[in-house]
Amino acid sequence: MRTCPRPTRGTTLAESQVLRRLKQLGDKNDLFRSYIGMGYYGTITPSVIKRCVLQNPGWYTPYTPYQAEVAQGRLESLVNYQTMIQDLTGLDVSNASLLDEATAGAEAFSMAYSINKKRNVFLVDEQLHPQTLALIKTRAEPFEVEIRVGSIEDMEFNEDVMGCLFQYPDTRGIVRDFGDVVKRAHDVGAIAACSADLLSLTLLQAPGDFGCDIAVGAVQRFGIPMGYGGPHAAYIATKEQHMRRLPGRIVGVTKDSNGNKAYRLALQTRETHIRRDKATSNICTAQALLANMSALYGMYHGADGLKQIATRVHRLALATKSELVSAGHRVSDGLFFDTLHVYPKDLAEVKARAADKQINFRYFDDGAVGVSFDEAMTERDVADVIAVFTGVERADCSDLACPEVDFGALARKSAFMTHPIFNTLHSETELMRYCKYLENKDVSLVHSMIPLGSCTMKLNAATEMEVVTMDEFAALHPFAPSEQAKGYWEMFDEITEDLCKITGYDAVTMHPNSGAQGELAGLMTIRGYHIANGNPQRKVCLIPASAHGTNPATAAMAGMKIVAVKNCGDGAIDMDDLAAKCEKHSKELGAIMVTYPSTYGVFDENIVEICDMVHKHGGQVYLDGANMNAQCMLCRPGDYGADVSHLNLHKTFCIPHGGGGPGMGPIGVKKHLIPHLPSHPIIEGPNQGSGGPIAAAPFGSSLITPISWSYIRMMGARGLRNASAVAVLHANYMADRLAEHYPVTYRGAKGRVAHEFVVSFAAFKKHGILVQDVAKRLQDFGFHSPTMSWPVNDSLMIEPTESECKTELDRFLDALITIRHEIQEVVDGVYPAEDNVLVNAPHTAGSLLATEWNHSYSRDKAAYPTEWLRQNKFWPAVGRVDDKYGDQNVVCSCPPMETYLD
Amino acid sequence: MRTCPRPTRGTTLAESQVLRRLKQLGDKNDLFRSYIGMGYYGTITPSVIKRCVLQNPGWYTPYTPYQAEVAQGRLESLVNYQTMIQDLTGLDVSNASLLDEATAGAEAFSMAYSINKKRNVFLVDEQLHPQTLALIKTRAEPFEVEIRVGSIEDMEFNEDVMGCLFQYPDTRGIVRDFGDVVKRAHDVGAIAACSADLLSLTLLQAPGDFGCDIAVGAVQRFGIPMGYGGPHAAYIATKEQHMRRLPGRIVGVTKDSNGNKAYRLALQTRETHIRRDKATSNICTAQALLANMSALYGMYHGADGLKQIATRVHRLALATKSELVSAGHRVSDGLFFDTLHVYPKDLAEVKARAADKQINFRYFDDGAVGVSFDEAMTERDVADVIAVFTGVERADCSDLACPEVDFGALARKSAFMTHPIFNTLHSETELMRYCKYLENKDVSLVHSMIPLGSCTMKLNAATEMEVVTMDEFAALHPFAPSEQAKGYWEMFDEITEDLCKITGYDAVTMHPNSGAQGELAGLMTIRGYHIANGNPQRKVCLIPASAHGTNPATAAMAGMKIVAVKNCGDGAIDMDDLAAKCEKHSKELGAIMVTYPSTYGVFDENIVEICDMVHKHGGQVYLDGANMNAQCMLCRPGDYGADVSHLNLHKTFCIPHGGGGPGMGPIGVKKHLIPHLPSHPIIEGPNQGSGGPIAAAPFGSSLITPISWSYIRMMGARGLRNASAVAVLHANYMADRLAEHYPVTYRGAKGRVAHEFVVSFAAFKKHGILVQDVAKRLQDFGFHSPTMSWPVNDSLMIEPTESECKTELDRFLDALITIRHEIQEVVDGVYPAEDNVLVNAPHTAGSLLATEWNHSYSRDKAAYPTEWLRQNKFWPAVGRVDDKYGDQNVVCSCPPMETYLD
Repeated sequence: MRTCPRPTRGTTLAESQVLRRLKQLGDKNDLFRSYIGMGYYGTITPSVIKRCVLQNPGWYTPYTPYQAEVAQGRLESLVNYQTMIQDLTGLDVSNASLLDEATAGAEAFSMAYSINKKRNVFLVDEQLHPQTLALIKTRAEPFEVEIRVGSIEDMEFNEDVMGCLFQYPDTRGIVRDFGDVVKRAHDVGAIAACSADLLSLTLLQAPGDFGCDIAVGAVQRFGIPMGYGGPHAAYIATKEQHMRRLPGRIVGVTKDSNGNKAYRLALQTRETHIRRDKATSNICTAQALLANMSALYGMYHGADGLKQIATRVHRLALATKSELVSAGHRVSDGLFFDTLHVYPKDLAEVKARAADKQINFRYFDDGAVGVSFDEAMTERDVADVIAVFTGVERADCSDLACPEVDFGALARKSAFMTHPIFNTLHSETELMRYCKYLENKDVSLVHSMIPLGSCTMKLNAATEMEVVTMDEFAALHPFAPSEQAKGYWEMFDEITEDLCKITGYDAVTMHPNSGAQGELAGLMTIRGYHIANGNPQRKVCLIPASAHGTNPATAAMAGMKIVAVKNCGDGAIDMDDLAAKCEKHSKELGAIMVTYPSTYGVFDENIVEICDMVHKHGGQVYLDGANMNAQCMLCRPGDYGADVSHLNLHKTFCIPHGGGGPGMGPIGVKKHLIPHLPSHPIIEGPNQGSGGPIAAAPFGSSLITPISWSYIRMMGARGLRNASAVAVLHANYMADRLAEHYPVTYRGAKGRVAHEFVVSFAAFKKHGILVQDVAKRLQDFGFHSPTMSWPVNDSLMIEPTESECKTELDRFLDALITIRHEIQEVVDGVYPAEDNVLVNAPHTAGSLLATEWNHSYSRDKAAYPTEWLRQNKFWPAVGRVDDKYGDQNVVCSCPPMETYLD
Repeated sequence: MRTCPRPTRGTTLAESQVLRRLKQLGDKNDLFRSYIGMGYYGTITPSVIKRCVLQNPGWYTPYTPYQAEVAQGRLESLVNYQTMIQDLTGLDVSNASLLDEATAGAEAFSMAYSINKKRNVFLVDEQLHPQTLALIKTRAEPFEVEIRVGSIEDMEFNEDVMGCLFQYPDTRGIVRDFGDVVKRAHDVGAIAACSADLLSLTLLQAPGDFGCDIAVGAVQRFGIPMGYGGPHAAYIATKEQHMRRLPGRIVGVTKDSNGNKAYRLALQTRETHIRRDKATSNICTAQALLANMSALYGMYHGADGLKQIATRVHRLALATKSELVSAGHRVSDGLFFDTLHVYPKDLAEVKARAADKQINFRYFDDGAVGVSFDEAMTERDVADVIAVFTGVERADCSDLACPEVDFGALARKSAFMTHPIFNTLHSETELMRYCKYLENKDVSLVHSMIPLGSCTMKLNAATEMEVVTMDEFAALHPFAPSEQAKGYWEMFDEITEDLCKITGYDAVTMHPNSGAQGELAGLMTIRGYHIANGNPQRKVCLIPASAHGTNPATAAMAGMKIVAVKNCGDGAIDMDDLAAKCEKHSKELGAIMVTYPSTYGVFDENIVEICDMVHKHGGQVYLDGANMNAQCMLCRPGDYGADVSHLNLHKTFCIPHGGGGPGMGPIGVKKHLIPHLPSHPIIEGPNQGSGGPIAAAPFGSSLITPISWSYIRMMGARGLRNASAVAVLHANYMADRLAEHYPVTYRGAKGRVAHEFVVSFAAFKKHGILVQDVAKRLQDFGFHSPTMSWPVNDSLMIEPTESECKTELDRFLDALITIRHEIQEVVDGVYPAEDNVLVNAPHTAGSLLATEWNHSYSRDKAAYPTEWLRQNKFWPAVGRVDDKYGDQNVVCSCPPMETYLD
């Protein structure tokens, strides 16, 4: 029957249907209680944080806080996070988070490598979590560093050793005193790094207290559900002397143009996209949303609350140990925090009873059982754990004695989280207000379009986001037996099949948990392919000058030699130069990394020829998937010649940017590369090859992949094609309207742009107006600036996406055109070059209300350059941020209280 | 084992435990597909509305929009709602919503009664929904109006008839032409009222188009889940000539002090609390949150989208009819919209197959079956419905022909929802931004404390709110067989038992769905008791002069004669006057309505004596439960002598105020009153008596009662007692700090206030500063004013609640003390009485940024009277609202587009 098209549209699903389907898939996941540990633990997300942050588009839709003046909320929160990490680890400086504990461990290795580049050995304690060890091996291999694994106390430290890493408490749960190891490392100038459980540090001596140079670890158990692997934040912290080698993002404190406290991303010159081919890390994103949630969790509980949680967890473990020992099981010697390492009398019996009670433990190869306790366990859960071992049921644990906590010399003595910000938000009312206070300082998609070139800030639909707070997906441990994750696996099957259809590839792996990790996975796959084919010398990677900054950084990490290829004036790859470079490096040619449509916002008409040429010389084509939003169901990388791509699920496929993370970067490959895809040390899954793992969990950040799955289900093939077409249409509409006012730098052969385009502001430099001034002036209009001065200087790169309506496109265009008039006023001398609405932008309400007004323009002109702003004004929280001052006076912790809100 | 107290605290439940328990209770509800109709239908809540409004404390925590300048967001939304209702009904003016369709029907009756007070007959068509008929009977009985029920076309209209009401389409689903009935009503000067299905009006002639004076109905199927009865909005609309008789709240358009468009509650002098003993309605609250959600639903779909939905629903019904007729069932003659009235060949077989497929239909007494189609039905659902009747399974409905829609003369011809506001928000991106834009214009609990005397604006915890979006509670039809609602019933059992323990009563009914409805239920119960005891003459109701305005309005509706009792200077009841009135009316004494602690914020020490005295004279004690927050587990109405109370679950028991509704008003009674509690015409439930129903659904707004249940579960007895004690402590702390600056008007015998207190501003009147100026100046500090000039003129009544921390109390006190200094500056002549920060408050950013500044004070002084405002400033959206202008130029629809944003 042809009724009207709601709710069933052909083969696509309506919103209500996709929710029903997700519920069905979720029901196929078995929610066993997982006490497996290995860096993943049950935790309770306070409802107020879930509701006010995780379910709130005001928090999950902002971009990375590059435009600091309209990002003060999440920047403040990230400084709180950094301070919490510094305090807990006893170290001087933390970054704004990494992807997962294993990646963080690999980054610790990379830091040691970059500090001690002339050395070639890195020592790893054998009781490190296995996934961390595996990642370090993946990362060390291209650098030709030897990873030695053993009992760290017994290993030799010599002048070849760049550094070491150990787990604290170790992967069995045993708390060892590594003080002596650290001293021995330092004696030979090696770096001592520690992978430490954050909750345990509330009771145990901090890594910094016993001398570690670097500490890393997962922040998951601070309020973030296990999510079958992620996303959650991982931390890395170090001593001040190594600050500039910290990977990823660091938020720092500086002052604004009015002399007030302001936050911003610090030390950006450090970032990988600047270091390019010298990079030892390609980390771009942080896990901002998750780091912020964990910081809020820490603030809600405070130091005392965290200690209380840790003490309870520890006592549950202690009490259980007594029962197990009484029942004749052997529990390994040594101090422990939350994990018991048990040799049961009868392993089969324990396994059977555990299965019967739907409880997962960790089963070691040698017959030991790991039992990890956590915050979310009730006394009933503990009684069940005991019953699994003893066979004796009890209703609760009320008959057990409360054990004493005694960590002896390893007990924590240093204070932490003493800053008032951690001691004022212990009520829901206060925390809710703080969440909203921060939210309302930030421009996000709930205010206006964020037309960031190359970052595709499109709608993150509420229906797509529902899954993130569904227990059926959120509560799974990533190393739970795969048969308990049938819903997930079915979903992975469907999304990988969909992504294959969309890209033209033969297989997709969901493993990499960011775009940059996807790039690394892709290049490592190519590397594995060449080595397997007897061509280990194929290490040259051609990269166009216009490439995303991560491209060369990743190539460097994959052990490749970067050779730049020129761009033509129109942004296309210079085919003559490409031919010349291919010829020259024909024997060593490993790969080309190319972006399509190009980073200049143009469909390069030579793309097929480029791929053919590289193939002819034995190279593989890595096609950067950043711009998939322009080609879904219009063209496919697998068809026009690419061999591998990563897909930014957080761009084209609707995972929100989260104010600077999480992302997801699955890769698609042609058939011949499948055998070389990454593997995983613990979980055997589909589309794995012989490559080393790139992320801690087998399917990356599993919990957010249903967002993309939902999007694809609801759009269907026709919807996806329409989206790409409309994205391109929008860009062309904007480019054409703007062309009367600004030069549109690059266009394709038919005079059209792709889904994004570059507008030049170079002509105004000589009049004292820089592109930065335009970006900041846009804030006065309530807009987040497009990508600035990339890929070419003095330009804005504008990407409207398909999910904005024409009214919004016009509103943004009107702002840019108004700004053009304001520039003209400066050019014409109506307002002086040193005092006008552009160079003084953004304007805060406070600065405009000063009693004295000595500017050349009126307050009204500054605040309300267009009429609609009178109804709907977003006020920047601070004036223009002083980056130079901040980098000269680096502060990355919470500033003194008097600078805060009352 | 004594571990630390998380997560188990004695017998109370932690947040995570209460969520688990709710899940278990929810699983006990059977989610049959309900095609019962009777005013409740499946609907799809767009995820964006659910997330951005229903799950967003910025939307659900504001108070009723009495402080219009900081409530422009929800006021604008309510005007959108009113416009939508006016358009759909074809009438001139709508109020801002009522509680449910049956209450709205009763209010239509009351309007007719108040228009034609000398007449004594009201005609009702026999095919009205039975619950609406029952409510009208309840309401008519005390007024001694005869309700005649019959086939309205055949009934006699004469000069005794005040009005009539019929259902359109009727309760069987049949669409009748009532044009002639309306004409006959008008011929004798009677009011014609119509209860109309809102969705059907997109296709059918509007009530206003065929001459109706009043239209009422449910708005539930506009995006609000059935929720086992509520809450959802009901509408009432009328012709302009009857506007001033519309019950409840109406939002109107006016201008502010800067001459700009502004919204505010219009015609407040009309409101019941002013009319008191002449009232024919005691409606206080609207269902603001739900009305706003439905308005957003209407805006998201627009007129075309709504027509599309209605057409699909109608076609599904048409196609099903063909199948049923083909299969030999008899479908009643006549046009229909969404409901089939079927006489099946074999009723038992249909019932059995329906049960088997978990489908609920409506089963009429005469063997007919009602089948109502709705937006949420998939083709698979329709196939199942057909299969229930035919016994023939099919996969979907693709083999059915698409029937033509033909309503003939009854087809809608008039346009609706043509205003641009209904035609610009059809994308999720745009609607999300609009929701956030409106949210950010309103002060709510996410910004600052709202210390409203008598309204208890306390924390609405996120955990408590989870249930509202749980399908297991939200998807039940209120007239589904009770055995499908086991989870609900278990929860009702527990909460009524808890409320009995808290109040000292013997039974509690959850039936009334607002505080005012609770009052009416209580007084009708007393009325029933006296009549049953042979004392129908006991109609005198003693009411202290200080009573809540609803008290006398309710007493009037219960057919009582109001006799005022004096208050002493200290706010206590004048015992001599009480004794005299009791003596004088001893034979006719029906009840006293008393509030404890008193509305003056004092624990009246004579409360026991008051109750005894009334009892001695044969009266019953109605204790207004508005101030339960001061006495939970400290004292109990049932212990100190009261016979009946309503409990405002939206005050003491944490249901959020929703920006002006919903509420819940269960009543507790002593044993002797139980037989006289309200009944329900459809569902037999616990604690029902012989009284008429007060609300449409048996358990009122069931979906929100778990909020209160969760609160009580998490607090436990000790927590509740602590909350009351801390609430009283907070009020005393504030009163004592303020006493140095303002007179605290009333204190108890020991010099203490209760949980709220009154501060007088009378002394400043002679200097030109009114309490309104203080209230508006508080907005410049980001605060919502306390209750103003109630219960005494020129005062603020401050209730801090227990869930605010001391920092926040001090912040508010500091604001009031700063204002005291500002008043002094006027008193001292530093600033003139006609131009100072108080009389010009509130100050918008726009007005402060004017290029010319001619005020006696600086812009900075106006905007930032304290330092913390520089970090955290809430800007009022408009200047002071001009009520007089608005009431002289009443506009209650969306104003022309040029006054809008862009």
